[in-house]
Amino acid sequence: MEYGRIFNFSAGPAIMPVEVLEEVAAEVLNYRGSGMSVMEMSHRSKVFETIRNEAEADLRILMGIPDNYKVLFIQGGATLQFAMVPINLLQNGVADYIVTGAWSEKAYKEARKYGKINLLASGKASNYSAIPDVSDLPVSPDADYVYICENETIHGTTYSELPNTRGKILVSDQSSMFLSKPCNVADYGMIYAGVQKNVGPAGMVVAIIREDLIRKDLDPKTPVYLRYDTHAENDSMYNTPNSWAIYVCGKVFKYLLRNGGLAEMDKRNIEKAKILYDYLDESKLFHGTVAAKDRSLMNVPFVTGDAEKDAAAVKAMKEAGFENLKGHKSVGGLRASIYNAMPKEGVEALVDFLKKYEGV
Amino acid sequence: MEYGRIFNFSAGPAIMPVEVLEEVAAEVLNYRGSGMSVMEMSHRSKVFETIRNEAEADLRILMGIPDNYKVLFIQGGATLQFAMVPINLLQNGVADYIVTGAWSEKAYKEARKYGKINLLASGKASNYSAIPDVSDLPVSPDADYVYICENETIHGTTYSELPNTRGKILVSDQSSMFLSKPCNVADYGMIYAGVQKNVGPAGMVVAIIREDLIRKDLDPKTPVYLRYDTHAENDSMYNTPNSWAIYVCGKVFKYLLRNGGLAEMDKRNIEKAKILYDYLDESKLFHGTVAAKDRSLMNVPFVTGDAEKDAAAVKAMKEAGFENLKGHKSVGGLRASIYNAMPKEGVEALVDFLKKYEGV
Repeated sequence: MEYGRIFNFSAGPAIMPVEVLEEVAAEVLNYRGSGMSVMEMSHRSKVFETIRNEAEADLRILMGIPDNYKVLFIQGGATLQFAMVPINLLQNGVADYIVTGAWSEKAYKEARKYGKINLLASGKASNYSAIPDVSDLPVSPDADYVYICENETIHGTTYSELPNTRGKILVSDQSSMFLSKPCNVADYGMIYAGVQKNVGPAGMVVAIIREDLIRKDLDPKTPVYLRYDTHAENDSMYNTPNSWAIYVCGKVFKYLLRNGGLAEMDKRNIEKAKILYDYLDESKLFHGTVAAKDRSLMNVPFVTGDAEKDAAAVKAMKEAGFENLKGHKSVGGLRASIYNAMPKEGVEALVDFLKKYEGV
Repeated sequence: MEYGRIFNFSAGPAIMPVEVLEEVAAEVLNYRGSGMSVMEMSHRSKVFETIRNEAEADLRILMGIPDNYKVLFIQGGATLQFAMVPINLLQNGVADYIVTGAWSEKAYKEARKYGKINLLASGKASNYSAIPDVSDLPVSPDADYVYICENETIHGTTYSELPNTRGKILVSDQSSMFLSKPCNVADYGMIYAGVQKNVGPAGMVVAIIREDLIRKDLDPKTPVYLRYDTHAENDSMYNTPNSWAIYVCGKVFKYLLRNGGLAEMDKRNIEKAKILYDYLDESKLFHGTVAAKDRSLMNVPFVTGDAEKDAAAVKAMKEAGFENLKGHKSVGGLRASIYNAMPKEGVEALVDFLKKYEGV
């Protein structure tokens, strides 16, 4: 492939569009006549302010973010959000969590430090191979919010429809499906996503939060960096942000806009995932691990049913130039992450290889 | 200049070595035959593990970090450290802070949320134009640590000698002087630095902390991301780190090692700063704002004594291609930040311009 690049199926940090990387490479030593790299730019300079403001404006167009939602750029990954969400959003001290895999489980455990956190539903009985029925759950009357991880990167599940929260605020970790399909932001009180899955370089979360949920009456011991109002009132520039991530993500937002936006990404992602799932459904060697209705379009875990055979297949794939297909250490098996930037050709090449490997 | 680059006197993010940026540019689309950008690499992959481990190993050589100190890479900037330091290090609940400018003042204010924080000494009476005498201070007998900001980026002061802590642990924010001169790490319990001043791109702090200070018996409500033990026990990979910053900083560490290390940087920085301070001491138009013994070699604030004249000078400098010489909005005036990567030629060119501007 161009530049000697390979098909990279990493779950994150993950594949990015080549044309975005070409732009980045061309600007490393001198960003558009500024005489400096974006890495060397004062975050208070006019040139960086433009980069930051365009990134936010483009994201707002891409997702159709309503005016009463703030867009925040925060460091510390989803892990820090696991604490910031309850610290900032608990008022009654009660929240309902739906646990559908490793990431919502981590969020649930962290939240329990800060209030009465109910396990509203869990997929544990199915070993997280399916999303539980979320159409009629006993949402706590005094819950400050209902929390989900909308796409579980490790277990490969996604919600086919959002839970019925009975009017309570929905908070969603969209990290591994962010910008993969259209999203009606008004359905949520808050969405956040680590950008290192489907957008750009690691080290930044995008948080989209309804303004009325940003409170000032927090526990006075709350670290200033962990308050959403700190970031909201300072356009995410209370302190130096991850300016490189803002810059690169901004380029990805523009790439998505000029390639048909989220509707087109959805179409492509459905098509790409179908190629892989169709093969897995027919294969005699491999099979997917997730119930058909709950399958992620982004992260596709599969197994042979035998750990040694799984390992042999990963090794053979690596030798053939398909990287990062080993399943997460906590679940084993194999996993292909096929984010927006994975071309259809990459999935086709993988399936061709798997067929040959299987001897079909 | 090469690549149309200019002399960039930004206080941070700030100038980086051209040869580091050249390497980065060449590797954006394919890092050394891996077939992918570092931005696209799983942080759990062998290739990234090597990048991370080399960065730490090189930093250890550069600073001579003893084996009983951990090196941590943490997101959230110095602002998050302002909270993490007291949250993690307070045991008796008492600490002594020396306030010498804007950044130690911010750290002091944040720390007061978490314990009995004493103002051990302050430069406020001199408007932070000098470091108070720190040779014989009434250190609290039960203080868990003494805190300093070793170089104040805004006020342009630095410590000519470290405070006498009477055996208490010294914690130092070295952000704007990190790696500018040799450092005896054993003099400190903990050093931390936001890397976006003197090293690399924004979005990461390097924390160097003595192992016995990393506690497990913290308040159970402490967010997992804010615990030093979380980062220490997982080689700073509990969650996805700012892998791009680790990569670029690693290149700067190698650049410093092959250019004579910190002793050589110190020599160059003394020489560079002398050119500027000598001019300011002689100038009839401009003068430095800091007592001679406490002058930073990194951040050089200066004024005419008239805000309008200051603004006119900043404008003229910008037109002549010298960027980011406006003083911080909180203090006004002018400021030249002359970090490791600023060549002597840059300082000479600035002084030549200032002389002509003054009409000498």
